[in-house]
Amino acid sequence: MQRTIDWADGAVELIDQTELPEREVVLRITDVAVLVDAIRRLAVRGAPALGVAGAFGVVLAARAHDPADDPDRFAAAVASVREARPTAVNLARGVELALGRVDGGVDAVLRAALDLRDDEVAASWSLSAYGADLVRELVGGPVRTMTICNTGALAAVERGTALGVIEELHARGELVEALPLETRPLLQGGRLTTWELARMGAPHRLLVDSAGPFLLSRGQVDVVLVGADRIVRDGAVANKVGTFSLALAARYARVPFVVVAPESTVDPATASADDITIEDRGPGEVVGVRGVAVAPPGTPAVNPAFDVTPAELVTAVVTDRRVVRFDRGETLGSVPLGQRRTPSRT
Amino acid sequence: MQRTIDWADGAVELIDQTELPEREVVLRITDVAVLVDAIRRLAVRGAPALGVAGAFGVVLAARAHDPADDPDRFAAAVASVREARPTAVNLARGVELALGRVDGGVDAVLRAALDLRDDEVAASWSLSAYGADLVRELVGGPVRTMTICNTGALAAVERGTALGVIEELHARGELVEALPLETRPLLQGGRLTTWELARMGAPHRLLVDSAGPFLLSRGQVDVVLVGADRIVRDGAVANKVGTFSLALAARYARVPFVVVAPESTVDPATASADDITIEDRGPGEVVGVRGVAVAPPGTPAVNPAFDVTPAELVTAVVTDRRVVRFDRGETLGSVPLGQRRTPSRT
Repeated sequence: MQRTIDWADGAVELIDQTELPEREVVLRITDVAVLVDAIRRLAVRGAPALGVAGAFGVVLAARAHDPADDPDRFAAAVASVREARPTAVNLARGVELALGRVDGGVDAVLRAALDLRDDEVAASWSLSAYGADLVRELVGGPVRTMTICNTGALAAVERGTALGVIEELHARGELVEALPLETRPLLQGGRLTTWELARMGAPHRLLVDSAGPFLLSRGQVDVVLVGADRIVRDGAVANKVGTFSLALAARYARVPFVVVAPESTVDPATASADDITIEDRGPGEVVGVRGVAVAPPGTPAVNPAFDVTPAELVTAVVTDRRVVRFDRGETLGSVPLGQRRTPSRT
Repeated sequence: MQRTIDWADGAVELIDQTELPEREVVLRITDVAVLVDAIRRLAVRGAPALGVAGAFGVVLAARAHDPADDPDRFAAAVASVREARPTAVNLARGVELALGRVDGGVDAVLRAALDLRDDEVAASWSLSAYGADLVRELVGGPVRTMTICNTGALAAVERGTALGVIEELHARGELVEALPLETRPLLQGGRLTTWELARMGAPHRLLVDSAGPFLLSRGQVDVVLVGADRIVRDGAVANKVGTFSLALAARYARVPFVVVAPESTVDPATASADDITIEDRGPGEVVGVRGVAVAPPGTPAVNPAFDVTPAELVTAVVTDRRVVRFDRGETLGSVPLGQRRTPSRT
């Protein structure tokens, strides 16, 4: 199966997710500006995939502008990649990781980027095993899961984060039904998660975002599983807008709310939610849906791409290296990193 | 200005709200089946307007099938109107009110329907005055309001309910900004509320539904104002799906959450939320947006049109006859009906 993002024959290859589910288009990118544009318009998205994209971006930058001969243009190209999406910590981290190898030349930078890719793949498989075990512990039987946005293989090179756990539950025969939210404005849940659930043969029903809290209140959900773009030191979680609303409703309905993300999403350098920059993506995505106007021409809009869920509403954070049970008073600082899990691939 | 729904020259006239904001199309309806279809596809919608539509439906039924000569067909036609939307109590109530005058002949039924229309207009103006006074009391200065769905003149013959209060605040110079949620799946907020706010010259910004809770959490909203399709005896409120989510977020952010609806929406015959039938409108509205596919073909969906907000999350209910402060322990049973207000029309 085509990976979401990879390096092949001297170019970045990525599935253009804005074309899904209608068309599977694979872009071959050799130019930094084209990659930055792909990141901005969400042709590639999802925290782990963005990290890999950031590292590949440094490769393209180093190839175009020799860091020794033309440091200013190299630095500007790297900065354009780093700043393509301000909220996701993985993008900047992928950039920094590759940048740290720049003294070794383009080949060393590429090696670092490929290592990051392999590491994200291993992380996804590990956290899907940790997560499925936690769900069994929390729910204790076949489960109905609710999720938002797309956190599957499309977001993470392979397997995914929250949707990776759902796939693992399905592989174990423990999934009754997945309930993906459509995830306005860009409908990653409606377009991408449904497409991935159908491909894995998992029973599912799509719903509009605001129906999520209602179904929770009516006892139709056993666990909420979401990804994260950034988890800061105090445990607050920045993720796709709508996550906070699900967390509030899960708490009200006494349903576990589990955040699933690679350890690379944890950002101890940022103390609390107040320090997180929330990207406003402008009115266009709100006043139109896939090119169709859904508001009068010229309607002003506010369009935060992310929201912040405080730690007190989170039952547990699952990473590829540990499970942190906030509901038992554990914190990101109190639980040490454990071993990566290597589940048998289905 | 054209009323949302009215009786003119022997026919029901209504603005086809499915055509807004692109086109203002006025339908002239003389046939019960056409009216039922208009109600089902939300060409006419909003609790007060639906009550009037129900009463007019009985007029059309009585004209088509003499209740004395052909009671079975008359009864079937009336039942089709009553059952066109199961959740809104006003529709059934408008039907019953007109039906009670059937012994007086078609003219008496029409008179009852016109009286109901006039009564809904007076109710809207009264509750907008009660509501604006309450907001001043709760917030004490210029306000930023959040609302969902469409609760303006389009929903209520004239003026409206929650949006009527916002219009009254704007008329008084007390509105800083209105923040309407787009209201998936049918986008009544994006298509209709923005259109009405622009017509009244009120500053506003549109947002996707799941951004509402986030803006509340960031201190960007002073009061949430929503309508209601039904308020049951224990104070639980059935309203457009997404309302419950706003109520949870308002409570978390300590922002007042006010329900605005005519007294006719109060349904003391229904004890609690468990007794409310929630309409599922099928997958079509979820998997497509105005004719554009937003999910893979054949994707299953769940589509509750309404949700239920428990009384404990409601600060106050404002009707045309009273303000009931749930936050002070008042109940629908403890606060007597007061006088209708007659604000000076702007």
